[in-house]
Amino acid sequence: MPDTSFEPIDIATLASANPDHWKKAAAIRALALDGVAAANSGHTGMPIGMADVATVLFEKHLKFDAKNPDWPDRDRFILSAGHGSMLVYALLHLTGYEDMTLEQVKNFRQWGAITAGHPEFGHAKGVETTTGPLGQGIANSVGFAMAEESLRAHYGKKVIDHHTYVIAGDGCLMEGISQEAIALAGRQELSKLIVFWDNNNITIDGTVELSDRTDQVMRFKSAGWHVQDIDGHDAAAIDAAIVAAKKSGKPSMIACKTHIALGHAAQDTSKGHGALTDAAAMAEAKARYGWTTGPFEVPADIKSAWEAIGSRGNADFTAWQERFATVSGSKQAEFNRAFVGDAPKKLSATIKALKKSISEKAPSVATRKSSEMVLAAVNPICSETIGGSADLTGSNNTKTADLGVFDTDNRKGRYVYYGIREHGMAAAMNGMALHGGIRPYGGTFMCFTDYARPSMRLSALMGIPVTYVMTHDSIGLGEDGPTHQPVEHLAMLRATPNMHVFRPCDTVETAEAWELALSSKETPATLSLTRQNLPTLRTEHKTKNLTSQGAYVLADAEGKRQVILMATGSEVEIAMAARDILQAEGIGTRVVSMPCWELFAAQEESYRKRVLPGGPVRVAVEAGVQFGWDQWLSGERGKAAKAGFVGMEGFGASAPAEVLYEKFGITALAVADKAKSLL
Amino acid sequence: MPDTSFEPIDIATLASANPDHWKKAAAIRALALDGVAAANSGHTGMPIGMADVATVLFEKHLKFDAKNPDWPDRDRFILSAGHGSMLVYALLHLTGYEDMTLEQVKNFRQWGAITAGHPEFGHAKGVETTTGPLGQGIANSVGFAMAEESLRAHYGKKVIDHHTYVIAGDGCLMEGISQEAIALAGRQELSKLIVFWDNNNITIDGTVELSDRTDQVMRFKSAGWHVQDIDGHDAAAIDAAIVAAKKSGKPSMIACKTHIALGHAAQDTSKGHGALTDAAAMAEAKARYGWTTGPFEVPADIKSAWEAIGSRGNADFTAWQERFATVSGSKQAEFNRAFVGDAPKKLSATIKALKKSISEKAPSVATRKSSEMVLAAVNPICSETIGGSADLTGSNNTKTADLGVFDTDNRKGRYVYYGIREHGMAAAMNGMALHGGIRPYGGTFMCFTDYARPSMRLSALMGIPVTYVMTHDSIGLGEDGPTHQPVEHLAMLRATPNMHVFRPCDTVETAEAWELALSSKETPATLSLTRQNLPTLRTEHKTKNLTSQGAYVLADAEGKRQVILMATGSEVEIAMAARDILQAEGIGTRVVSMPCWELFAAQEESYRKRVLPGGPVRVAVEAGVQFGWDQWLSGERGKAAKAGFVGMEGFGASAPAEVLYEKFGITALAVADKAKSLL
Repeated sequence: MPDTSFEPIDIATLASANPDHWKKAAAIRALALDGVAAANSGHTGMPIGMADVATVLFEKHLKFDAKNPDWPDRDRFILSAGHGSMLVYALLHLTGYEDMTLEQVKNFRQWGAITAGHPEFGHAKGVETTTGPLGQGIANSVGFAMAEESLRAHYGKKVIDHHTYVIAGDGCLMEGISQEAIALAGRQELSKLIVFWDNNNITIDGTVELSDRTDQVMRFKSAGWHVQDIDGHDAAAIDAAIVAAKKSGKPSMIACKTHIALGHAAQDTSKGHGALTDAAAMAEAKARYGWTTGPFEVPADIKSAWEAIGSRGNADFTAWQERFATVSGSKQAEFNRAFVGDAPKKLSATIKALKKSISEKAPSVATRKSSEMVLAAVNPICSETIGGSADLTGSNNTKTADLGVFDTDNRKGRYVYYGIREHGMAAAMNGMALHGGIRPYGGTFMCFTDYARPSMRLSALMGIPVTYVMTHDSIGLGEDGPTHQPVEHLAMLRATPNMHVFRPCDTVETAEAWELALSSKETPATLSLTRQNLPTLRTEHKTKNLTSQGAYVLADAEGKRQVILMATGSEVEIAMAARDILQAEGIGTRVVSMPCWELFAAQEESYRKRVLPGGPVRVAVEAGVQFGWDQWLSGERGKAAKAGFVGMEGFGASAPAEVLYEKFGITALAVADKAKSLL
Repeated sequence: MPDTSFEPIDIATLASANPDHWKKAAAIRALALDGVAAANSGHTGMPIGMADVATVLFEKHLKFDAKNPDWPDRDRFILSAGHGSMLVYALLHLTGYEDMTLEQVKNFRQWGAITAGHPEFGHAKGVETTTGPLGQGIANSVGFAMAEESLRAHYGKKVIDHHTYVIAGDGCLMEGISQEAIALAGRQELSKLIVFWDNNNITIDGTVELSDRTDQVMRFKSAGWHVQDIDGHDAAAIDAAIVAAKKSGKPSMIACKTHIALGHAAQDTSKGHGALTDAAAMAEAKARYGWTTGPFEVPADIKSAWEAIGSRGNADFTAWQERFATVSGSKQAEFNRAFVGDAPKKLSATIKALKKSISEKAPSVATRKSSEMVLAAVNPICSETIGGSADLTGSNNTKTADLGVFDTDNRKGRYVYYGIREHGMAAAMNGMALHGGIRPYGGTFMCFTDYARPSMRLSALMGIPVTYVMTHDSIGLGEDGPTHQPVEHLAMLRATPNMHVFRPCDTVETAEAWELALSSKETPATLSLTRQNLPTLRTEHKTKNLTSQGAYVLADAEGKRQVILMATGSEVEIAMAARDILQAEGIGTRVVSMPCWELFAAQEESYRKRVLPGGPVRVAVEAGVQFGWDQWLSGERGKAAKAGFVGMEGFGASAPAEVLYEKFGITALAVADKAKSLL
């Protein structure tokens, strides 16, 4: 059970033991109190509890330069316990990040401020990732640390050589994703990853004891971590622990015993987790901290001391610039291009050549295999890609011959065996993309999008170009049955803002989708790929990337256009066969391939109307649920022609793929019949 | 590194050491080989590797009666490593489950067979839960074990007193959900939960070493488990370990060192994980097993021995029936009702009384609070409910005064502190519902549906009535920002087959939604509830449950009906205010509240057309994305009147709720303007 008694005497002892440290930490505590109180919302206790750890980290260890926040070789600081956002805002303001003005701190959690309720990537410099959904930060950090290892191996220590520091709370460690993350970090011996566990024994519902008795020290050791257990308010102990962690040669977890809301009446209680806004209690707490100035007022000497910390790394930054200047021009260009996120110049030509070759050879292959063919062409010219799979390498076709395996003895390897950890993989990929210099992709079965979902949403929310290679994308996977057969997943992904969902119908569209994914800077992509073979439908070579328009006329009606068939992926073949049936009966039928709804929706209305003109009957066919399709069946329809859908009405079943398509009625005949019934 | 050498001598030694055991295990192995070969698809190696453990468990320990598979007090056997489904099908066939005929085994993975690729709940008796998505089974098992503890406390040992056994593979243990499950089981000291870890050191990509070096024994110990490490082919060791596990007083993990595909040429390789169909290799393996009969032929003596195991529990079953008959009539009735899943008789009257009272008092409360009001009325009359929250008890309002806390010293408690484990909570709830006798509900923030998603899908796929209490269901939660603000989650859930998504607009609809959720037998429910206060809109008491129709006319047009406004949840208030604006301008406006799309879609077309007649302009308003709404805006539209949507176009932001509604333009004025622009 935690300390439930409130012990002001400890505060006095702490303060007097190391007054210089204490004052700096007190500045964080006071700003946290003031920020939350002004917002009348937020989480005060965590920043107060972890102020000592953060102060020591920033003062003595974190390699950063507040005036050069984009320095690629800075240490990364990740607040996995994102609800304690005032901690990072206070640190950024105190150390002198230019965008983190006092005005921003005062506008904590208000419209338009960069000081969002939880740290949002892209709002404030120094916020390395979006956190709040618990466990994500610690799992991102594994990707950051992997990116660092990879780039260090590729560019050398003089260009990349830094640590990744994380503050994680009990919530982060209870979330399952943390296990995937720490096991992966342990396996990869990510020795530059250092996690501080804010061991305050408090969750929202009460003491941790209510729901957990895990021995976290033993747990991290079981995953191969170096672990220390310290008093999180003892500056000297914190410093010594970080020194030891750096030398450990392993990922390191420092269990920091802290008091949530230290010195406040709510100390060591779940109330202390939330917004502490009572004026009297705030005044009392500030008095205990020896803090005598008004709200948001930081005494000049303390602010100066913090700003000195903020500029401590400037010499290092300059030295880094000088070292970087000695790197070869081509390496510099490659580095800069990868960090900016530009695609290699050769990408376009490579994709065009592949498309041309494929259009000529017209192979019949699964699009997961198509994807591998594209990667085989693309990986050699994209040194920034790091591929992987959640233990489905041979099924996802994500590994190409040139990549090599990323491992403790081969940091130049660019293929990651993530293990059966879809969520951890997605979060690690987010971390790599956020680090910069890396363009990650990773695969699993489309159905297990479910497992990766919280991190996939964050890819979209943060606007980072992670590519999800999701194979076995329908009942077409066959015998594995409904647990493995996505039916609602396309809808889920399409409903998610800022996610490009590509469902290519053949190798040519797959190549186009990959080109778009690899060229994206602010939008993640999901490639929905088949297990089963599909014919090449794009046999007429076009240099233009037709997939970039989202949807296009694959085959137009001969004679009077009476029917428009819309389809994606494996069902485009069915639509084409249905067109044959209908045309044979004299019914003019257009087939529209729609590999990416989001890009189609982004086209000008005039283009969309050219592809989907009013008048003809519309039938969509997709081996998933109808949900969302009405947007195209009816939503954009000019005249009130009839529309229908051929697809799944519920979950799948276990049987060979061809049997399932037949039994669920997703056939050319069914599509043709549906169209005729509407004419 | 694993044994990569193939050691036939071990097989002979094993076989001769315990020939009776060996023959029975060989029957499993032979059927697994034959079943997978016939399907030309599936996973042979795992059933072969775990045949010894399964044989000992079924022969010596598992309390079951093959002829009475629904015996409520049977031990539960859960194959978390669901890809090894032939193991359970073989066991069920051999022990004499009537539905598991040889014909079914021969039709493994074929259309219409109960022998699906992965075990599907509801197909074959003896399949306690649907597995395949890894980690789910072990996490379900925590719910099974909690249900057993709860029911034992409630009904006494003579009615419920059984174990839950699980076979989990490396994949299960790598998935993050396993950590949530084992930590929760450790915290709750679920001493009747026994997990066998199939420690075969092989995953699909290769050896476990490729992606993991976790010391699983240490890891389980860190969570408070009793752990043993044995040779998984040594029948005596397996038996002794199970005996010790039962006595341990803790949840128990038995690490079983096994050889995947033992005795087959693919032994100890990742190839052994998949379908082993080579005839010569199969013949060699069978020869090593001493198996001389043809495909699917089990010698009569071995089948008899297995059937004796299958009927071993019959006397226990009869004794249980006799004990159960001594229980009071009211307890028997309660038990039977709860296991059948019938709602208490008083439920309807209780809900009606609450609705009447609410309609009169017309409180302005958040629907999460409305939900608490309903639970406060309902929990006392539903002894089968077990509530909980993933560490958001005070926010989800899931705890009512009468429940008590389920804990090691209070198994009668009906409220579970799940900790920050949304996924583990959902999977545990699935386990409770599957066990029978319990109707679980649990809460988190709507946005963290993402974390629980894989288990929520399985609730729907299995058709079990779990209730998800998802609060803070839009930007209306305010300052916590976009990581906490669902925008696509309603679409995700609505796209999922067999999921009732309720988004009530006030306390009356909340009560109706709860009545439907608590009466459901085969469909899970998600309640989408607000953080912010809403007025009571249903001020005119109706005894009928209007929510059961999915959508209904809340306020009809006065004068000529020119506009239909559709809305759910917190936006119904906005639609009503928009109606006021429009009516004031003489524009006849109907407001349709749509608390449950799925139930509305299930109504007869004539009803749907009465609610949403063709002709008027339609505007939908919901603080989420438009995705899916076209179904109602256009899909069912008779005449081509215009339609519009007022809602979110992307992610939310951090600011007070009222600011967000204003900034994102989700206001009565915006709705009225949208309608007018379409007229």
